[in-house]
Amino acid sequence: MEINDKIRTVSIIGSGNVATGIGSALFSAGTEIVNIYSRNQENAQTLANKVNAVAITNISDLKNNTDLCIIAVPDDSIASISDQIKNFEGIVVHTSGTKPLSVLDNQLRYGVFYPLQSMTISRIPKFDNIPLCIEGSDTGTSNQLKSLGEKISNNVVNLESDQRQYLHMTAVIVNNFSNLLYDMAHELLEEKGMDFNLLLPLITETAQKVHHIKPSESQTGPAKRKDEHTIQKHLSLLENHPELKKVYILLSEHLIKKYHD
Amino acid sequence: MEINDKIRTVSIIGSGNVATGIGSALFSAGTEIVNIYSRNQENAQTLANKVNAVAITNISDLKNNTDLCIIAVPDDSIASISDQIKNFEGIVVHTSGTKPLSVLDNQLRYGVFYPLQSMTISRIPKFDNIPLCIEGSDTGTSNQLKSLGEKISNNVVNLESDQRQYLHMTAVIVNNFSNLLYDMAHELLEEKGMDFNLLLPLITETAQKVHHIKPSESQTGPAKRKDEHTIQKHLSLLENHPELKKVYILLSEHLIKKYHD
Repeated sequence: MEINDKIRTVSIIGSGNVATGIGSALFSAGTEIVNIYSRNQENAQTLANKVNAVAITNISDLKNNTDLCIIAVPDDSIASISDQIKNFEGIVVHTSGTKPLSVLDNQLRYGVFYPLQSMTISRIPKFDNIPLCIEGSDTGTSNQLKSLGEKISNNVVNLESDQRQYLHMTAVIVNNFSNLLYDMAHELLEEKGMDFNLLLPLITETAQKVHHIKPSESQTGPAKRKDEHTIQKHLSLLENHPELKKVYILLSEHLIKKYHD
Repeated sequence: MEINDKIRTVSIIGSGNVATGIGSALFSAGTEIVNIYSRNQENAQTLANKVNAVAITNISDLKNNTDLCIIAVPDDSIASISDQIKNFEGIVVHTSGTKPLSVLDNQLRYGVFYPLQSMTISRIPKFDNIPLCIEGSDTGTSNQLKSLGEKISNNVVNLESDQRQYLHMTAVIVNNFSNLLYDMAHELLEEKGMDFNLLLPLITETAQKVHHIKPSESQTGPAKRKDEHTIQKHLSLLENHPELKKVYILLSEHLIKKYHD
């Protein structure tokens, strides 16, 4: 494969959320998917069926003269997978927000192809607007990954490993931790037989607002107002939930400090 | 006014976010807005102009024979306002998530008209889907408030004071605290000259997902996986932000406990 060739054929190691998300998006964009590898035959076959690829459960069956191999497995397995595909002739990328580019430096040409989105197989979001963070072992590789990325996303960005790690940390804050807050509210309302759906318009509006107004400017609520009376009332309602109460106290203190110190 | 009459004329005490939100929605739905009261002449006039009402800055100028008076002021001023409008002949409601119905029991007919949404004057959301929590001092009043509410919202619910307070507490969790998390991410990215907009698709998807999947089922991330390596990496990135680090630790511990104990 020449340095400036387009990436036309792709294999994927993994069959989980990210493998399925990226595989489906590339397939829809007309890229040929060659192999899907998973130790689990059924998982490999399920994704292979979706993207018209050949499922393999033995990694040595991976076709070596493919343009790109995407390693979409848990972070701690990336290095070991890379060791097992040393004869692969194309570019090798991983899809992790956390692992540095260098984890693949046993390859000739390698990179990162990290979609900044939360994916579950039951709900694969459209890739169009998903930021796709690209890094390559050399300029030619970066360019090829960028042009592949642009087939599935309008938002391809070059990020170095330390920037990507930092971005991933903030993604954990806005995604994992917000979802935990939703879950706390869900648990509390369910306990009283109340309907979590009442909160959905508020959840949506809170998320949409920051598309237009800086979060510090759209902050509202008792802690922002330093309304001790309401805060105490809420803490009394959380009396039987010491863990949730701790979270309520810490976040309220943080807000009071931010807006009143 | 007869018990079963429709509410046709409304005055509003207050000119802030909630007063503006409710006033604009009722006016658009064809309700006549009579007076807007604010101590601040300019604020009273601004909202009065929007809803074709008469601005007043002296509360004794409030027209007494109006069907409904909506007290949309900070929680701690509701009781004092209610004292000052004892001659008002219609229904008196407040718009607070926290204050009990009884704070207005010096009135003959009274209630609560609480829109469960975050409003700022610069961004008044459409009322159609906003849950409107109604409570009345008697069945006739509840019914009249309900039928007024249904002119502006498809989601009018009868809630007693303790249910409303509980719901409000969960609203603080999903709205105020999620927004604080967005703000933390914003601050962290800005510091590195990185673009907060990269997180917007993730923020939107996180909020949309819980319309379809229970939050406990859509939880992902390093703490859920008990991925100590990534957690430690993130904590090292937060080394210069001890307050944010505390939040990261507490929420991660909560997730680890929830999914691994």
